[in-house]
Amino acid sequence: MKTLYVELGDRRYPIYIGPGLLARPELLGSHIPGQQALVVSNTTVAPLYLEPVRAALGGRRHEVVILPDGEQYKTLDTLNEVFTALLSHRFDRNCTVIALGGGVIGDLAGFAAACYQRGVHFMQIPTTLLAQVDSSVGGKTAVNHPFGKNMIGAFYQPLCVLADTNTLATLPDRELSAGLAEVIKYGLIRDLPFLEWLEANLDALLARDAAALSEAIECSCRNKAEVVAADERETGERALLNLGHTFGHAIETGIGYGEWLHGEAVAVGMILAAELSARLGWLYREQVDRVRRLLERARLPLQPPPGLTPDDFLRLMAVDKKVKDGQLRLILLRELGRAVIASDAPPRLVKETLEQAL
Amino acid sequence: MKTLYVELGDRRYPIYIGPGLLARPELLGSHIPGQQALVVSNTTVAPLYLEPVRAALGGRRHEVVILPDGEQYKTLDTLNEVFTALLSHRFDRNCTVIALGGGVIGDLAGFAAACYQRGVHFMQIPTTLLAQVDSSVGGKTAVNHPFGKNMIGAFYQPLCVLADTNTLATLPDRELSAGLAEVIKYGLIRDLPFLEWLEANLDALLARDAAALSEAIECSCRNKAEVVAADERETGERALLNLGHTFGHAIETGIGYGEWLHGEAVAVGMILAAELSARLGWLYREQVDRVRRLLERARLPLQPPPGLTPDDFLRLMAVDKKVKDGQLRLILLRELGRAVIASDAPPRLVKETLEQAL
Repeated sequence: MKTLYVELGDRRYPIYIGPGLLARPELLGSHIPGQQALVVSNTTVAPLYLEPVRAALGGRRHEVVILPDGEQYKTLDTLNEVFTALLSHRFDRNCTVIALGGGVIGDLAGFAAACYQRGVHFMQIPTTLLAQVDSSVGGKTAVNHPFGKNMIGAFYQPLCVLADTNTLATLPDRELSAGLAEVIKYGLIRDLPFLEWLEANLDALLARDAAALSEAIECSCRNKAEVVAADERETGERALLNLGHTFGHAIETGIGYGEWLHGEAVAVGMILAAELSARLGWLYREQVDRVRRLLERARLPLQPPPGLTPDDFLRLMAVDKKVKDGQLRLILLRELGRAVIASDAPPRLVKETLEQAL
Repeated sequence: MKTLYVELGDRRYPIYIGPGLLARPELLGSHIPGQQALVVSNTTVAPLYLEPVRAALGGRRHEVVILPDGEQYKTLDTLNEVFTALLSHRFDRNCTVIALGGGVIGDLAGFAAACYQRGVHFMQIPTTLLAQVDSSVGGKTAVNHPFGKNMIGAFYQPLCVLADTNTLATLPDRELSAGLAEVIKYGLIRDLPFLEWLEANLDALLARDAAALSEAIECSCRNKAEVVAADERETGERALLNLGHTFGHAIETGIGYGEWLHGEAVAVGMILAAELSARLGWLYREQVDRVRRLLERARLPLQPPPGLTPDDFLRLMAVDKKVKDGQLRLILLRELGRAVIASDAPPRLVKETLEQAL
């Protein structure tokens, strides 16, 4: 087992990474302060991993909420089901909400923990690659609104993150690929050696080689933890973690939540960001192709979905959280391994990039 | 104009109290950082005070959401209307949500500001006595759940509180009395000289004497600001501000939100707390009568509503936010002017107090 820390002063917390962690009750037990726990999971993950978690909770009073699986359920209405469960069981301010699942479950359960009685304890048990390398770390929680993804939420840190790499054995191929998109993102934005390592080890990752997966998760979490510790509430550097996300969120909102996986939309978004970076003279054509090739090897989509026009993109991107006083800000690549916040990309080049891709 | 400060380090903010503040655009203007403002108000307050606020916003882009009036609309569904308005107008992370109204509007708009894009700017313009002396100060925001009042919310501080005492001229008598309940609360929990001042000046307050109202608002806000500065997130002392609220919330939830005003329920709750304190030997009978007499002079209800049984109360109180690991904690009066957190009140005495009152 590897242990990393997100250094946030008195809210510092550990990320445990390794095989078989769900079978170690002391890991869960030592991080639950009170006597009440609510496990939030979904119809796909619960049949696989709920029992070990219940066993690990031992004598503690615990209840379970099982939600339908999919991004389309990351809504205020589903959130309210979690509140109703907490209140029905008369859970108090000292209870712990445990997210057992992928990014949707983690985002929603975390936001429920942030709001219930104005804040209760929270623990992340991510069971997808995407959640283990990205969404479970750093305290961003949210639900979607029909007009915009992740528009309603809170910064709310967990007590710990418990990433049992054995859970990846049951992950569908498509979900594995979606997680690899966020892994590749860390290489692109701030870690060129990791990008090169990924190019050398992608086949092992796709073959679910345990050592390779562990290395990729650890390196991703280390990058994420460093950025979050430096800028928890995204007043600066943390925005770089959103490479591909402004384009990606426009895809997810535009075609309807749940059609594409988040990581798939981010993959196409990263290609668009790389293409725009090339138009600005920051990347060579060969470097854009290198990005595209790696994402292609990871079995990720390379083209935006049919049906969305450049104007659809621009309209949807106008409500991105990085917009400030009406000005769109994009994360672009100044070079491979170094992302920047660009508020001055000429709208003409953004539009040309979209037109060429669509 | 008087100016008090809530001392919260780099989130320190002013409370402005005085007549005619809405007519001073520089007060609003100097506290809005960006170019976008959303005014949230209700169908009662907007016809009276929306125009001066719009005028004070001057050239800034602003939009308005007008909600129905009443505690029964302090829900997740109404909250979502505010999010929809913010997104429809493409408001970004640098926008400001302005609450113009009483406690319901302030709690709901504040929670919307806390969650929209994980937090945008927020300003309070309270127009009821209750909001000016209590709910607009200190950063508690929330909506209700059918199973419990204020159960979904956040601690989220405003940029400033602007209490224009002229707005009290249009306040219905019943709302004035409800506000006086929270004013009297400060005297009971921590300020015996203020309690005595209230006994001497209650007739002036009921006659809406401007100087007396200003004095009462200022003294209430000073008490609240001191407590909040010492314990923002209610890990200790701040709970004392909830004198009468555990009983009161049970009344509001039990008979249905919006039937009684919050201050009315708190008044009865404070009588129940005083009665229980007497049973514990902490107050003399004459002191309980003194509390009762003051609330009666303020034209507040003295009896719980018909229809609620002691068991209803106990069931509803079991989901109070002060419950910890299953143990009910009540705010009681150790003496007049000094409240304490009591986790050891014998359940038998709680039940006897309820049985005698009902």
